[in-house]
Amino acid sequence: MNFDTNELIGFVAALLTTIAFLPQVYKTWKTKDVSSLSLPMLLLFFTGVLLWLAYGILKDSPSMIFANGTTVVSTVLLLRFKIKYHKK
Amino acid sequence: MNFDTNELIGFVAALLTTIAFLPQVYKTWKTKDVSSLSLPMLLLFFTGVLLWLAYGILKDSPSMIFANGTTVVSTVLLLRFKIKYHKK
Repeated sequence: MNFDTNELIGFVAALLTTIAFLPQVYKTWKTKDVSSLSLPMLLLFFTGVLLWLAYGILKDSPSMIFANGTTVVSTVLLLRFKIKYHKK
Repeated sequence: MNFDTNELIGFVAALLTTIAFLPQVYKTWKTKDVSSLSLPMLLLFFTGVLLWLAYGILKDSPSMIFANGTTVVSTVLLLRFKIKYHKK
């Protein structure tokens, strides 16, 4: 049996950090409240995840491409909301 | 020269997604405004990053341990702020 506990932990970790942003996207989309979201955080995180996606493509890793591709989309949506609904 | 562009991209990606949470921690600490932070996001992300840290320890990867250890601390702080300053 080719069961690797380490890789299972890694897989669940990737799954959780990928889906984590979905409730944030939903909440922000619903409330239009972006006051406490940090723009520098979103910009740094977006750039970082974009580079993780490039790394996944270069390394030919489908799981990295899927996880980081999904997170890039979530982060783009949050950035769009932050810029659109930001006051002052 | 043992220069690997892929690994440089991965390193910068890890650095950016790790430091990204610092401006969020600073902003939240300073403003005490947690209204637009999603609690499910923080809980999912915290659990995911904790598992990434476990994965890094199991894989004996200093860079994963450092990056995810730092992000665990940032996320614990954000969770603490969210619970402490949450209204209603």
